[in-house]
Amino acid sequence: MRQLRVYFLPCLVEPQALVGATAVVIDVLRATTTIVHALAAGADAVVPCLEIDETRRAAEQGARNSSADGADGRILLGGERGGQPIPGFDLGNSPAEYVPEVVGGKRIYLTTTNGTKALLHCRQARRILLAAFVNFSAVCRAIGQDSDVAIVCAGTDQEITREDVLLAGALADEFVRRQPSVRANDQAWLAIDAWRTMRTELTSGKLISPLRDSIGGRNLIEIGQERDIEIAATIDKFDLLPEFDAGSGQIRFAALA
Amino acid sequence: MRQLRVYFLPCLVEPQALVGATAVVIDVLRATTTIVHALAAGADAVVPCLEIDETRRAAEQGARNSSADGADGRILLGGERGGQPIPGFDLGNSPAEYVPEVVGGKRIYLTTTNGTKALLHCRQARRILLAAFVNFSAVCRAIGQDSDVAIVCAGTDQEITREDVLLAGALADEFVRRQPSVRANDQAWLAIDAWRTMRTELTSGKLISPLRDSIGGRNLIEIGQERDIEIAATIDKFDLLPEFDAGSGQIRFAALA
Repeated sequence: MRQLRVYFLPCLVEPQALVGATAVVIDVLRATTTIVHALAAGADAVVPCLEIDETRRAAEQGARNSSADGADGRILLGGERGGQPIPGFDLGNSPAEYVPEVVGGKRIYLTTTNGTKALLHCRQARRILLAAFVNFSAVCRAIGQDSDVAIVCAGTDQEITREDVLLAGALADEFVRRQPSVRANDQAWLAIDAWRTMRTELTSGKLISPLRDSIGGRNLIEIGQERDIEIAATIDKFDLLPEFDAGSGQIRFAALA
Repeated sequence: MRQLRVYFLPCLVEPQALVGATAVVIDVLRATTTIVHALAAGADAVVPCLEIDETRRAAEQGARNSSADGADGRILLGGERGGQPIPGFDLGNSPAEYVPEVVGGKRIYLTTTNGTKALLHCRQARRILLAAFVNFSAVCRAIGQDSDVAIVCAGTDQEITREDVLLAGALADEFVRRQPSVRANDQAWLAIDAWRTMRTELTSGKLISPLRDSIGGRNLIEIGQERDIEIAATIDKFDLLPEFDAGSGQIRFAALA
């Protein structure tokens, strides 16, 4: 039996329950949105790291290896804590910072409060894809014929967030249309229920309002990063599919179907 | 600021975060539905217990006390494990069993897999009310003017269940209509989103279909207890409000507003 599972937070699924599945990781505000932007802007790869110190060490190691390749100066550090840039890092976690002039050809070591944790939680999955509203249709196509899909929302500090669940619902809704006989868990149906309530509003480009009201949106408004909500709400800005290779620890674009 | 919080599972809220709040505990299939039926059928009180052994010991203690009162034979044991009755217990966890001829005037020591755990998780709250679809409007009235409400869904074995979240959404929807300026968490908005998708169907008495498809519903169909889904889906069968007094450990009816 084909199955679709949605998890509103990483802690709601055991890592080993993802073995064999295609995991789709969502952190709309902002990690997965930012990572799509980084790769779209020509970054070579994004390396998600859990802790700040670990990020610095991994980047130093990466720099030494690059230097041996004769490809020095290609490393950038990015991320946030409490939504704010990390002292000494090159970049924060706003998608607006990840432009070609800054990130083109670079490898970015990224640590964010929730998104990178969610990615690493899924590392036992068969494939790990990254979803945001900005690459919605590319993800739909990639998972459309899959027989075992687990959509994992990052949330915020162990709190379920509306923006992540709405995107999960949008993806799940498309999935069950393509595969009506799929077995879906209750979180998948709830996410679909929630998305369908909004759909009229959303397809008319008004996704911004529920995103502003969500816990993640309110946090961004508080720290003056309101513009990022608009960016994150731009459905299908890119036709691109980031994939996390747990072996190499790198996120790069996957070939599109 | 008035606040409304919904939690899709007990583990999503720390017990101490409920201090000062009115907690509303939901386990539609079946604990809270059954408890409303038990009290409506004239049971003196329901005593929720976590473990089977603890239930037996508490009942024995209760029987000794009753006997000293000259009110012997007033104790019944009820509950389930895996949905099935517990060997040696008087009653299972089906609301249909809790009729006046059986439970009238009795004190019922009840242990269920998820519902009693959820109740005991909330014991630090200011008040602890029990909600089911069968007493929906009584709960709405009771919490309508409250300034700090936390709705806690029991779920099933740490899985979020659709039927509990839909009832949470129905209660939250009424609450925000009465208090539009309330601050609600993202789980509250998601539950409202989900409920609003179904509302047309639900008010026309078709709540049974999503309940049958939920994880709790499928479990009941599997063990031949399908009839309980219909009972649980009967909106406002009773105008009654069970309240758990954590001090005495007993659930009785609260005075209605």
